[in-house]
Amino acid sequence: MTRNIKLVIEYDGTRYAGWQIQRGRPTVQQQIVDAIHRVTNEKVTLYGASRTDAGVHAVGQVANFHTRSKILTERFPHAINFYLPEDIAVRSAEEVPAEFHAQFDARGKTYRYTVLNAWTPRPLVRTTTYHVRGPLEVSLMRRAARAFIGRHDFRAFGTEAGRRKTTVRTVRHFKIWRDGELLFFEVNGDGFLYNMVRAMVGTLLRVGQGKLPPREVARILREADRVSVGPIVPPHGLCLMEVQY
Amino acid sequence: MTRNIKLVIEYDGTRYAGWQIQRGRPTVQQQIVDAIHRVTNEKVTLYGASRTDAGVHAVGQVANFHTRSKILTERFPHAINFYLPEDIAVRSAEEVPAEFHAQFDARGKTYRYTVLNAWTPRPLVRTTTYHVRGPLEVSLMRRAARAFIGRHDFRAFGTEAGRRKTTVRTVRHFKIWRDGELLFFEVNGDGFLYNMVRAMVGTLLRVGQGKLPPREVARILREADRVSVGPIVPPHGLCLMEVQY
Repeated sequence: MTRNIKLVIEYDGTRYAGWQIQRGRPTVQQQIVDAIHRVTNEKVTLYGASRTDAGVHAVGQVANFHTRSKILTERFPHAINFYLPEDIAVRSAEEVPAEFHAQFDARGKTYRYTVLNAWTPRPLVRTTTYHVRGPLEVSLMRRAARAFIGRHDFRAFGTEAGRRKTTVRTVRHFKIWRDGELLFFEVNGDGFLYNMVRAMVGTLLRVGQGKLPPREVARILREADRVSVGPIVPPHGLCLMEVQY
Repeated sequence: MTRNIKLVIEYDGTRYAGWQIQRGRPTVQQQIVDAIHRVTNEKVTLYGASRTDAGVHAVGQVANFHTRSKILTERFPHAINFYLPEDIAVRSAEEVPAEFHAQFDARGKTYRYTVLNAWTPRPLVRTTTYHVRGPLEVSLMRRAARAFIGRHDFRAFGTEAGRRKTTVRTVRHFKIWRDGELLFFEVNGDGFLYNMVRAMVGTLLRVGQGKLPPREVARILREADRVSVGPIVPPHGLCLMEVQY
């Protein structure tokens, strides 16, 4: 009997060259495939919902694999975690229909980007936040972010020109809030172009710094004005929160 | 002109043998003294409010040093941070009266202990939380923690027998709350015996697990029943939040 197992995975991306297996570089996918091999004695293919970049974190990455092993589904998290380094952990496992595919069946993804907005660094959040020193006006950034909501051609915010058929995506929500010195950007959409979240946040930061008027974001999007897009913010502030099916 | 400079310091204690300088081991105090030396060309004595243990973190450690340098007080954080590793940072600096002493003048300290209460590990909080798998009953722990409030002889909860004159301390508050899978224990008092916070939390966890009736904590305290005190929880869940003057 073959089962299809869906995993929810958390990782600290600091040490990794991203999710996807690459020859000679440590990746999250490789670590989990190796751990599953130790548990099941099978060389499985692990399908991940999101190919997170080098340095990007996840609390809700989803992946699936097919297995003929007899291990109880609910025992997979502990069994796999036993062979994983402490910066990766399977949080849960469940059996899903044979045709379920973590990447192709994903209806939406939620990412969160965290900025430390303070004059001095904070060592305890250094690996999960991007440090921005000057003042940032949340109300301006919120106004600008409204332009992202809905179905648009996000070509200006993606850096994978030509690799995909369409650059049209739907953004369902874009929330921005402050908690003390931390500033959170949370975006949910049906999919994201390569570097899209980090380019959107980089552009909003320029708005928050008063360097770009909020209404410019709608124009950049409409005219696909790649040149006016803010710098792509560093990967370590980004975290994949959840994948919806 | 000599100035007395008070610093507020944050650090990730993971890599350090604690605050206090020890020969041949990396300590937070040593790193800061070395950085101040690079900035001022002076070999200063740095007085810290709390001698945090190996692995313990701080967001609000306080320390002071005397200097004859002419650097503007408000420039000290950036100047010192420039020479500090990224797991230690000075958050602020202010000039204080010559007689101010970070350790002796402290009227109170607030510590927070964080438990990850979940079946599986969470890599993103692995260096700042202690992982406890089974159920923990917050209401039982709260009831038990009431016994700590007030002025008591905490001898049973300290492991520095004979090193100090008195083992009497005043605990002003002891708050326990849950936020999802995270459980926070926050205690404020006029001072703490060596390992006292970690022994209190260890004892409360036994209460939360149903292994020790809540009323037993008052008895342990009253009878100085060291044998019934719960195990000292690991250092990496502990963080010095604030020092009051």
